[in-house]
Amino acid sequence: MSLNQLGIVRRTIARADPAAVARLSKLGVATIHEAMGRVGLMKPYMRPVYAGAHVCGTAVTVLLHPGDNWMLHVAAEQLREGDVIVAACSADSDDGFFGELLATSFRARGGLGLVIDGGVRDVKDLTAMQFPVFSRAVSAKGTVKATLGSVNVPVVCAGALVNPGDVIVADDDGVVVVPAASASQAADASEAREANEAEKRTRLAAGALGLDMYKMRELLEKAGLKYVD
Amino acid sequence: MSLNQLGIVRRTIARADPAAVARLSKLGVATIHEAMGRVGLMKPYMRPVYAGAHVCGTAVTVLLHPGDNWMLHVAAEQLREGDVIVAACSADSDDGFFGELLATSFRARGGLGLVIDGGVRDVKDLTAMQFPVFSRAVSAKGTVKATLGSVNVPVVCAGALVNPGDVIVADDDGVVVVPAASASQAADASEAREANEAEKRTRLAAGALGLDMYKMRELLEKAGLKYVD
Amino acid sequence: MSLNQLGIVRRTIARADPAAVARLSKLGVATIHEAMGRVGLMKPYMRPVYAGAHVCGTAVTVLLHPGDNWMLHVAAEQLREGDVIVAACSADSDDGFFGELLATSFRARGGLGLVIDGGVRDVKDLTAMQFPVFSRAVSAKGTVKATLGSVNVPVVCAGALVNPGDVIVADDDGVVVVPAASASQAADASEAREANEAEKRTRLAAGALGLDMYKMRELLEKAGLKYVD
Amino acid sequence: MSLNQLGIVRRTIARADPAAVARLSKLGVATIHEAMGRVGLMKPYMRPVYAGAHVCGTAVTVLLHPGDNWMLHVAAEQLREGDVIVAACSADSDDGFFGELLATSFRARGGLGLVIDGGVRDVKDLTAMQFPVFSRAVSAKGTVKATLGSVNVPVVCAGALVNPGDVIVADDDGVVVVPAASASQAADASEAREANEAEKRTRLAAGALGLDMYKMRELLEKAGLKYVD
Amino acid sequence: MSLNQLGIVRRTIARADPAAVARLSKLGVATIHEAMGRVGLMKPYMRPVYAGAHVCGTAVTVLLHPGDNWMLHVAAEQLREGDVIVAACSADSDDGFFGELLATSFRARGGLGLVIDGGVRDVKDLTAMQFPVFSRAVSAKGTVKATLGSVNVPVVCAGALVNPGDVIVADDDGVVVVPAASASQAADASEAREANEAEKRTRLAAGALGLDMYKMRELLEKAGLKYVD
Amino acid sequence: MSLNQLGIVRRTIARADPAAVARLSKLGVATIHEAMGRVGLMKPYMRPVYAGAHVCGTAVTVLLHPGDNWMLHVAAEQLREGDVIVAACSADSDDGFFGELLATSFRARGGLGLVIDGGVRDVKDLTAMQFPVFSRAVSAKGTVKATLGSVNVPVVCAGALVNPGDVIVADDDGVVVVPAASASQAADASEAREANEAEKRTRLAAGALGLDMYKMRELLEKAGLKYVD
Repeated sequence: MSLNQLGIVRRTIARADPAAVARLSKLGVATIHEAMGRVGLMKPYMRPVYAGAHVCGTAVTVLLHPGDNWMLHVAAEQLREGDVIVAACSADSDDGFFGELLATSFRARGGLGLVIDGGVRDVKDLTAMQFPVFSRAVSAKGTVKATLGSVNVPVVCAGALVNPGDVIVADDDGVVVVPAASASQAADASEAREANEAEKRTRLAAGALGLDMYKMRELLEKAGLKYVD
Repeated sequence: MSLNQLGIVRRTIARADPAAVARLSKLGVATIHEAMGRVGLMKPYMRPVYAGAHVCGTAVTVLLHPGDNWMLHVAAEQLREGDVIVAACSADSDDGFFGELLATSFRARGGLGLVIDGGVRDVKDLTAMQFPVFSRAVSAKGTVKATLGSVNVPVVCAGALVNPGDVIVADDDGVVVVPAASASQAADASEAREANEAEKRTRLAAGALGLDMYKMRELLEKAGLKYVD
Repeated sequence: MSLNQLGIVRRTIARADPAAVARLSKLGVATIHEAMGRVGLMKPYMRPVYAGAHVCGTAVTVLLHPGDNWMLHVAAEQLREGDVIVAACSADSDDGFFGELLATSFRARGGLGLVIDGGVRDVKDLTAMQFPVFSRAVSAKGTVKATLGSVNVPVVCAGALVNPGDVIVADDDGVVVVPAASASQAADASEAREANEAEKRTRLAAGALGLDMYKMRELLEKAGLKYVD
Repeated sequence: MSLNQLGIVRRTIARADPAAVARLSKLGVATIHEAMGRVGLMKPYMRPVYAGAHVCGTAVTVLLHPGDNWMLHVAAEQLREGDVIVAACSADSDDGFFGELLATSFRARGGLGLVIDGGVRDVKDLTAMQFPVFSRAVSAKGTVKATLGSVNVPVVCAGALVNPGDVIVADDDGVVVVPAASASQAADASEAREANEAEKRTRLAAGALGLDMYKMRELLEKAGLKYVD
Repeated sequence: MSLNQLGIVRRTIARADPAAVARLSKLGVATIHEAMGRVGLMKPYMRPVYAGAHVCGTAVTVLLHPGDNWMLHVAAEQLREGDVIVAACSADSDDGFFGELLATSFRARGGLGLVIDGGVRDVKDLTAMQFPVFSRAVSAKGTVKATLGSVNVPVVCAGALVNPGDVIVADDDGVVVVPAASASQAADASEAREANEAEKRTRLAAGALGLDMYKMRELLEKAGLKYVD
Repeated sequence: MSLNQLGIVRRTIARADPAAVARLSKLGVATIHEAMGRVGLMKPYMRPVYAGAHVCGTAVTVLLHPGDNWMLHVAAEQLREGDVIVAACSADSDDGFFGELLATSFRARGGLGLVIDGGVRDVKDLTAMQFPVFSRAVSAKGTVKATLGSVNVPVVCAGALVNPGDVIVADDDGVVVVPAASASQAADASEAREANEAEKRTRLAAGALGLDMYKMRELLEKAGLKYVD
């Protein structure tokens, strides 16, 4: 492995199986994260720029520097239909790296949305376009194009490791990363979990208690729980 | 008083007078807080998960541990019609302790809403259900059920002391706690304040100045305010 | 210059040229900030209290103290049609300095909106009134009227210097300050930038790459960018 | 209970048993907190103004408003030998409420130290005096004396409920509150814990593993832990 | 005034009167800030990199961009004996803009210290050199030299406006800016305040109460303070 | 790759070459990070618990859950002479996962220090032991032992990817991760950089300017820098 991961654009990446991506696109982030054993979630400071934003696709990763969005332009060329751009930054930065012109370009090249550990702008336009963006901040501050980063190298974005080609699912609850090789397995586990929830919902709505449904009473007593009046 | 408040579920609590709760439910948090002499407000990081959320009810309190929502299941059984669940945590945690299954259960048992010094998930579903939730964060991260906390003990939630049975009022402006014994008095003072505001509004809308309405000019001059051109 | 800027109300200020203000009111914050050479932007923690809020007008500045909104009442009298109140605070404070009664008063006196490095309340009412407010926080906590600040002195608000009479433009992307003397120049530069974007948008939507449009390929190669498979 | 807790000075408070305070003064905050079942700890943002600061005494509580230290002067008169001043604030404020003049006064009246959910100044002097102060911030910003708070009412300070007379113990690890009525019981439990640790330390220093000492291997296996090569 | 303040180095600045600077150098930040009427203080997140750091001198200002320290090299040439470098940044950045090589250079050119709204590195070396640095963060992350900022233009640093030539005083309590034209006046007021404190200290140490010394009892009673047992 | 990385202890890991580790132990974090092309640095919120703490060794990684330190006990058994424990957490948590008993155990098993994206306690004892710890917080709050994490899986700690066996270097400036396979290369590059700095230091101390030493004048002029009087 080379010491330096900067200044590299990888053109060939192994994208997750499209069938698995399609299945995951029907499921919520909370369900998938739970089904995967609670790994791969980005930090909760990552929020959608408009309520109801949702995206599911394969990651094209970008490593940026604070105040510099040069590599987002480089990344546009690497997009294929169904990709989600995932942009990490070499240090925390709330600058507005991305706006509606880049969104227009990404969409024209097949990009479905953006997940960025940085700021974005043109919120009104992005909302009108319904281009889903999940970011750490909104900021009108533009950026320069001066320093090399990389495209399609492994990145740490908002606390989660993302490899190019991984599945990215994002909704109102956050952003989860599903390793490309585990996509089908994750879809299986998530669908099973989802199926299981419908019955629980019905019972709970009828007034059943989780204490009984999940058989917690004995465990609670053993742990020492005391009921007092 | 026992040293240890963990591992206790109090089944009998003194809920605030329903008539006072009903009156408070018609008033805004800012008005009530002001009328109470500016005490009992939770920190402003507590935000509704959807715009326009509003709840007013009697507190069933829960003490949780980071990453563990076991006690929310225990609390469900203690709910009565008109209760609001107030969940504190033994240390700051943004984990998603609560989602739509628990919301379904709480509602089926009479719960009106949730105030939690922690994270929640299933924002889309909670919005669709119009189940009002006020939280410090949104996070898809689920929790375990491993460590005892307590139900219906006094808790400090987002900087405010909450005793079981206190009135909790929450809207777009924040969350206020009205001690059960003061509920009628708080409703009196809030209604008086509210009544007083209608007249002020009319005069201000007509161009009157607060400087004159509140007779501030003399005090300002005495304090040394200088007008210059 | 006097040592002490507290306790002063300046009645005569040089407001920016109304024609320039009118032109700037048709442009976005991100465009104006970019056109001005990326200076004058407030910190990104300043957010609108409702989505879609927008305001453009001339600044009447206020210097407040934590938990004290006395000077907002003093400022109301200094408003003219087309002004925006810009309130700074002598130390960080999330208190709710402002609500719908003051909004009613400001509007009646010609005020178009508020930008405050502090908290506000009555979010529901402000939204119903469509009175645009940009703030660092929402808080139900009211304030006292006890300590002198100033009106129409230079203030630092959310990291930006604001002189009375400067143009304030605020939208979903943030808040930018245009010095009164530069308003026409800023409008020129912003309009030029805006005009230029329409053509770029069309080309990007057709699939053109920023790499080619902005002639970046040579610079990237010179900087050492490597494409690998 | 009165609605309004502002504007009150309670002169007679029930201080914890001096013998228990003396015993607790020999123990660390982490040990006491653990022995009490992990309740009563202030948030970890409370830090000593100099390394090695330590204090243990009975609480005289103060409720302040942002930017206003009037009540600290009122509190000085209520101090007895062995007291620790605990100052809460009605909203988050980093202002410098306290400096060496007040430290001189508190010490002269028997005060042992200060715990304040706000800022302090004169760090160099406080260090030279070795007057232990635990605060949320350091700030040179002074305060006014304009608004009533209270002395010796129950307060929530940095997330913990403090009643007048409770024992406050603070060291490099944080600040813990021991309810006055539980002081002896807490001292018993803490001393037992402390005694128990000496033997553990010796065994661990000799290379013993917690896995064996605490008999964790079976539980880990049962929970599903897998060892792989 | 030009629209764009970027790309400018002002060589001639009006430094504050050296005699006033010398007088201010003997006074604490809290005293000076108080004497100036509580204006001009930087935010309390600005902390010294080693305990006891202190500096007083005339400002050479620098405007940086996130992750880019080019202008610090440009600023070095503009230093005169007795200057303090004050570096602002166009957006929040914790990057390590400064280390011991630049400290060596600044000192060789007459620089007394650095105040930077950004990160610094080489803390161990800076401490050994006793080169006073006040910053928002410590970070090993280096920076590039790619984008123009400015030297000796007015900047907003950590919330305070700094004009080139202003007096900067920094110690354990924070950083205060004294406008060049007010330096003598500020020194007068600060010395008067300091002189006044010695007598207060003696009386407080003897057990006198601020309540009596500052004649607060009547005001408190008038404000409605109630003493209860 | 398995979906679930929880509940695994890897006993055999490929540690970096001891000779390279020894060389890196003589170099500063800022130098190494710079020499590596500015990748691999943890976030700047990671701070030493005592000034001057320094550690360099091979990573034994741990994945914890909020409020649960069970896996630190499991990790102790996997330590070899020269290891540094690197603990990540599945969600942000400031709890005190670690104190002097575990430090005693780690040291007895060959552990040189701890890097933890969480809180620690017993600061006084750790300082007396001179056991280097770098953490996000200090907190007296203890933890439970209830939920499985993992040992020696890849983790993201404070924003940096750490694989078991990587070199961890931490000092007053922060924490850097050197991939095991790149350790020698990183040592080469860092030593070269270090050697180069001595000569620069001498010249700068003699008054030379970086502008001349680094030949920046032409580039600055080309970029458009203007000198004005």
